[in-house]
Amino acid sequence: MTLTSTPPRFRKAGYQAIDRICDYYYSLQEISVMSKVEPGYLRKHIPMDAPEEGEDFQVIADDYQKFIVPGLTHWQHPSFFAYFPTACTFEGILGDLYASSTCNPGFNWLASPACTELEAIVMDWAANLLGLSSAFKNSSGVGGGSIQTTASDSALITVVAARSMYQRNHRDVKMEELVIYTTTQTHSLGAKAGIVLGLQVRSIDVLAEDQYSLRGHALRNALEEDKKLGRKPFILIATVGTTSSGAVDNLPEIREIAKEQPDLWIHVDAAWAGVALSCDETRESLHLKEINAFAHSFCTNFHKWGLVNFDCSALWVRDRKYLTDALDITPAFLRTKQGDAGTVIDYRNWHLGLGRRFRSLKMWFVLRGFGAEGFRKYIRRCIDLNQTFAQLVRDSEVLSLVTEPSLALTVFRVAPKLESEDQPSLSMESLNEINSIFFGRISARSDIMLTQTNLNGIFCIRLAVGAARTTEKHIQDAYATIEKEAKATIETWQTINGAIVE
Amino acid sequence: MTLTSTPPRFRKAGYQAIDRICDYYYSLQEISVMSKVEPGYLRKHIPMDAPEEGEDFQVIADDYQKFIVPGLTHWQHPSFFAYFPTACTFEGILGDLYASSTCNPGFNWLASPACTELEAIVMDWAANLLGLSSAFKNSSGVGGGSIQTTASDSALITVVAARSMYQRNHRDVKMEELVIYTTTQTHSLGAKAGIVLGLQVRSIDVLAEDQYSLRGHALRNALEEDKKLGRKPFILIATVGTTSSGAVDNLPEIREIAKEQPDLWIHVDAAWAGVALSCDETRESLHLKEINAFAHSFCTNFHKWGLVNFDCSALWVRDRKYLTDALDITPAFLRTKQGDAGTVIDYRNWHLGLGRRFRSLKMWFVLRGFGAEGFRKYIRRCIDLNQTFAQLVRDSEVLSLVTEPSLALTVFRVAPKLESEDQPSLSMESLNEINSIFFGRISARSDIMLTQTNLNGIFCIRLAVGAARTTEKHIQDAYATIEKEAKATIETWQTINGAIVE
Repeated sequence: MTLTSTPPRFRKAGYQAIDRICDYYYSLQEISVMSKVEPGYLRKHIPMDAPEEGEDFQVIADDYQKFIVPGLTHWQHPSFFAYFPTACTFEGILGDLYASSTCNPGFNWLASPACTELEAIVMDWAANLLGLSSAFKNSSGVGGGSIQTTASDSALITVVAARSMYQRNHRDVKMEELVIYTTTQTHSLGAKAGIVLGLQVRSIDVLAEDQYSLRGHALRNALEEDKKLGRKPFILIATVGTTSSGAVDNLPEIREIAKEQPDLWIHVDAAWAGVALSCDETRESLHLKEINAFAHSFCTNFHKWGLVNFDCSALWVRDRKYLTDALDITPAFLRTKQGDAGTVIDYRNWHLGLGRRFRSLKMWFVLRGFGAEGFRKYIRRCIDLNQTFAQLVRDSEVLSLVTEPSLALTVFRVAPKLESEDQPSLSMESLNEINSIFFGRISARSDIMLTQTNLNGIFCIRLAVGAARTTEKHIQDAYATIEKEAKATIETWQTINGAIVE
Repeated sequence: MTLTSTPPRFRKAGYQAIDRICDYYYSLQEISVMSKVEPGYLRKHIPMDAPEEGEDFQVIADDYQKFIVPGLTHWQHPSFFAYFPTACTFEGILGDLYASSTCNPGFNWLASPACTELEAIVMDWAANLLGLSSAFKNSSGVGGGSIQTTASDSALITVVAARSMYQRNHRDVKMEELVIYTTTQTHSLGAKAGIVLGLQVRSIDVLAEDQYSLRGHALRNALEEDKKLGRKPFILIATVGTTSSGAVDNLPEIREIAKEQPDLWIHVDAAWAGVALSCDETRESLHLKEINAFAHSFCTNFHKWGLVNFDCSALWVRDRKYLTDALDITPAFLRTKQGDAGTVIDYRNWHLGLGRRFRSLKMWFVLRGFGAEGFRKYIRRCIDLNQTFAQLVRDSEVLSLVTEPSLALTVFRVAPKLESEDQPSLSMESLNEINSIFFGRISARSDIMLTQTNLNGIFCIRLAVGAARTTEKHIQDAYATIEKEAKATIETWQTINGAIVE
């Protein structure tokens, strides 16, 4: 029927694919991190219709190289410092390859027993790796972990479970009264859960002086205000490692408030930072003790900084019955003692859809291939590289940190050091203007990729370390490029606005 | 750091993986379709923790063969006739392999331009292949297609879009008044959307005499009843090819009602059957004309019967603005003229999460590898094989069809032919008891896999054709096995209950 549809032809095309992936990783240092294509480029190269007759796989594979690769942003490039990293390891690629070769939608145990069982085991491995309480483990029979697609999905499921818990305890509550709590620094997943579910979202203000962390008193004030207004906050999406600046909400203070709020579900979104809990030395600052003591649910994406290929969002809940109460549409007479007790998990009742990919396989391959030690070594190396970059910024004449570096993330901006004490400081408007020009210049380059953010009105730049091939040299080169562009920006700005010192 | 983490080691492990996938497909005919493992089998073979030190990839790959493969249900087995098929083609495996090798979360154009552009193009290819109106195509700039994870996700997104449209037109509507319409034969995705969103679901009864299809008058009656009760139906999830029996809702009649209901979103879920629209001869019975004329959204899963590896749920909408109005959390000042006009699609505003896999690549590989002709040939072959099976059932002394076969699905049951006109028919209870015993016997075998269903109280058995390696011989063998077990069941039942003829 087609050239690859027999095993010998697949073998040939498969070997070639493996070879080309090797070539890709060998060449990664030499190519641009950002694609240079213009919007609409691909329609110029690809016909309007599928071919009528099947094509030779060699033609397809060659077209992939010719037309697709040039249009990719190379997230695995050693000079990719934008957003957060997306892990891509050979172990993960191979795990995914085996999984897709026996493709099944694993929605319950019977649909493919190994899929359910491996997910339950590997999520317990991951819980141990991160130091999570055994209450969260599948082996507890009460709590449990599952692999979701993204942190947005994990948060959405959690909000649904929390809403269901609240509604069971307050039968008369109206949907219009319910409120999801986030902070102004919460990832868009909070707003998205609100818009999808049609529920109100309250973003509590956080302050620069608190390093953009949610404090206990701010939460208490919000709760008191909403109580007066008859609104019903039923979940707080707290963050450990925000997207903009890696801020960590003050879980010890939040815990004190939560004690008096039995109806308030606490979801801890540590999509990016959570995998760093594998290292003992980060556990206190990331509030592992409090997560273990009082969070209802906890999420971290192994597909970000956790070496497992996208998608692999790990979600743990302290009590699986809140998930299944909220998501199980199995009629009562089909529920089984084993299912409820956890001997057999029906993962279809732990997520939004029905079918699910066999994602635990790649996680198993990665955790075994690296080992706990290799995993921690990688996390620590990224943190060290970021410390190197942050120190360069601290020592710089033209750059400064906006917040203290968080793990493998530095938030900085162009801010010329004052030449004397008498020199007037630049206004926030001027600094923002300078940084906006600076970011425009950086974005016009294709040899480095960073992202911008805004912290309570301050235009700033993020540098996130995480690509597996980034070395100290790439950090030094990145700094040199950034410093050069910063100096050029200041010069341009001075030409337009007159010298900084009048 | 680990043995596979350099290209040469990956090359070796990758070649081996390709070889083992070939071996798997060579051996498929000789192994059991169902796994013989018991619940909990895997914990006996796998330690409680990830290893501290990284392991040689050969050990991991061997453990995969030893412990995982025996716990798989083999959906690609030629004697797999359960549920619906899950496509797995070499083209799809290779597409997915390339995609995972450059892993990125493609949430907007900039995050990886090729991902957005290829998805937009390939979804237009697919629209052409199925004969969808150009209104649904991305090139229209108004409607558009995107790849979602599952039909449940597609339905959930659609319900959110429909709710948002309704709420914009009826500002005072309360969530508690809103109702999602389904039928009693709608896939669990309808109930799941309701439970996730906290909205009422009304399942309209459908009748055996209508072949379980939703009729216009039933819809009209429901609308009139709900109007009197102050309830607000805002979406109908109609089905073309239900899971239980492949029933097709009467879209021509529904269209007449929908004309008077401008607020009622019509979503057509053709998760399984939709790909058959590639063949001209099915278009009338699957109501393509009506889908093109009035459906707000249409979904079919290429990962079921459409040769593309899981997951790949294709969702088209007639007006993308309803999706983005409902799901876009981009602040107004970040919206772009290009984004709104469709020059650049931000697919993150077309689905639930933020990040998304590069799924269009495998779809592109499959559609090119097979060509439109090869795709149709495959669909037609499955339909033919099913006709062969259905004819064997028609001619059987012990089996009979419950509904007319639908495309590649036959629903039948054990029902001994009467020996004379005077012989009393078996009661429904007795027939259900017989079929329940029969299904128990079939399920105890590991050489064939079928699923049971229940149609308005009738216990019946489904046989769905779709695995790429199923041939006429497998159909004949399946029939022989089924007939043998049916006869044995009747014998057992007669022994317990006395002869059928007293």
